[in-house]
Amino acid sequence: MPKVLILSWHAEEFHKLIEAAHLPALEKLAAAKDAAEALPLGTDFDVIFGEPARIRDVLSALPNLRWVQSIWAGVEPLLDPSQRRDYLLTNARGVFGGLMSEFVFGYLLLHERRVFERLQAQQEKRWDHSRTGTLRGKTIGLLGVGSIGAHLAHTAKHFGMTVRGYTRSSESCRDVDAYYHGSGLPDFATGLDYLVSVLPNIPSTRRIVDASLLSQLPAHAVFINAGRGATVDESALIDALQNGRLALAVLDVFEQEPLPPEHPFWRTSNLLMTFHTSAPSFPADLSRVFIENYHRYVNGQPLLHLVDFERGY
Amino acid sequence: MPKVLILSWHAEEFHKLIEAAHLPALEKLAAAKDAAEALPLGTDFDVIFGEPARIRDVLSALPNLRWVQSIWAGVEPLLDPSQRRDYLLTNARGVFGGLMSEFVFGYLLLHERRVFERLQAQQEKRWDHSRTGTLRGKTIGLLGVGSIGAHLAHTAKHFGMTVRGYTRSSESCRDVDAYYHGSGLPDFATGLDYLVSVLPNIPSTRRIVDASLLSQLPAHAVFINAGRGATVDESALIDALQNGRLALAVLDVFEQEPLPPEHPFWRTSNLLMTFHTSAPSFPADLSRVFIENYHRYVNGQPLLHLVDFERGY
Repeated sequence: MPKVLILSWHAEEFHKLIEAAHLPALEKLAAAKDAAEALPLGTDFDVIFGEPARIRDVLSALPNLRWVQSIWAGVEPLLDPSQRRDYLLTNARGVFGGLMSEFVFGYLLLHERRVFERLQAQQEKRWDHSRTGTLRGKTIGLLGVGSIGAHLAHTAKHFGMTVRGYTRSSESCRDVDAYYHGSGLPDFATGLDYLVSVLPNIPSTRRIVDASLLSQLPAHAVFINAGRGATVDESALIDALQNGRLALAVLDVFEQEPLPPEHPFWRTSNLLMTFHTSAPSFPADLSRVFIENYHRYVNGQPLLHLVDFERGY
Repeated sequence: MPKVLILSWHAEEFHKLIEAAHLPALEKLAAAKDAAEALPLGTDFDVIFGEPARIRDVLSALPNLRWVQSIWAGVEPLLDPSQRRDYLLTNARGVFGGLMSEFVFGYLLLHERRVFERLQAQQEKRWDHSRTGTLRGKTIGLLGVGSIGAHLAHTAKHFGMTVRGYTRSSESCRDVDAYYHGSGLPDFATGLDYLVSVLPNIPSTRRIVDASLLSQLPAHAVFINAGRGATVDESALIDALQNGRLALAVLDVFEQEPLPPEHPFWRTSNLLMTFHTSAPSFPADLSRVFIENYHRYVNGQPLLHLVDFERGY
């Protein structure tokens, strides 16, 4: 008989959605915005559904904890080895593929279609009939091909592109034309039109986008980071952008968020920033993920989107 | 033994591409930029490959003409009933679907992702974490579902949208969820999030996007015209945009092109213009269309993308 705690900035909205689902065998359902609100509601919860950064604060107070469903794809706050790992941790990676495709291809199209230049022509009352670019025939390289990368690959094929994938070892996405691993990173990057990272922040990905990797890209290339800020050497990226060795970077994530006021990114040319909004968490989507996994939980079936604490995703 | 005239602003580029294809049974191949250049090359051509507006000028001078391959999707210059129609006219409609999808979904994503607002935040050094919109779950209405509309419908399904189609009678695209015809236009438009026209300019489509149709759309709707300018009542559109009854219009085509300097569109709010660049004609793509049809022509097979002069497309 599960006792479920909703622990989220959007606690009320999630509470309504989960209540409306009339979950079977549910013994207790409570919702709180943070640890201070949550702990007075009891310490007998076996299930938490919410944001990893908030859940971290109650981990040690819930002896019966068996399952945490994160509403984020990234679960870094729960991965610190000093914290308990004696529960099932599932993330929301199934939800964000479509949203990430909207983000990545929206910005790639913005670039190819020269939207800003076209707007400037309009403001100058100038009929700008110059030819646009196209995605078709271009080559995109995906750093990371999990469920989000697979959706990006599928969208890339829809637009007639060639797709390279860089992964630890998996080669399971059929929309990837060529896979690269380990020391194949320079080959992976050479000649890419677009480099897109959706990597999680784990030790092996830290600053993987560095001066050396960036130097493999042609000067017309676009880099998009929709993964985690720590995977990029920010100084090397600024250097490449300021010196015309990269046409454009679109950054959704940063080593430090919110970006500090004195950060040089605020003054870097050929850079667009989207402030960690690339894949918004829509409560209805995330409740569906939780509800599906809840049914599996009460029926003793394997949960979807299980995180391997050692691997980190 | 075909005698082929290339008649295009890009005559040289096409000439190289066609020559490189080593077409079988080709008796004569010539290339010219316009009628004045073309006519000295002979009047015995049976095939022309080029832009309709240029081809119109030589129609009456070529007694042996049997086939015209247009490099545009729209062939209005050749449709005037006073002109000869005793030849096969094929257009390039197979080429532009993917490019039109890039255009339409690029601008829809720009809108949902609030790209301009995000850029303004960046310029003001403001961490704008406000939630973006999404295409998923939205409803798009396509005015016209030929080969271009079908590609748009397919892209819309890829992004998780509901698709309505308004056509004369055809219901052949399986990515359209609901079809509308004739007097069903108000029902088609009611409640659409996005209205996209890819209609050709023929008598039955003239000013089909008028005050009445626009009044069916919700105020948050976006209208995109990637078809022909004459299908829109431009005054009614300006009125809807200026008075907040439409969130945004993106216009690639206009009743008069280039848009005259005094046209009110230059001063209309909530309007983006792209100056007839939505589906660029890439010579390699169009040469492929011609070459495929050429093989059909010499083998006596039916040509692809045949235009019905009466229907107009």
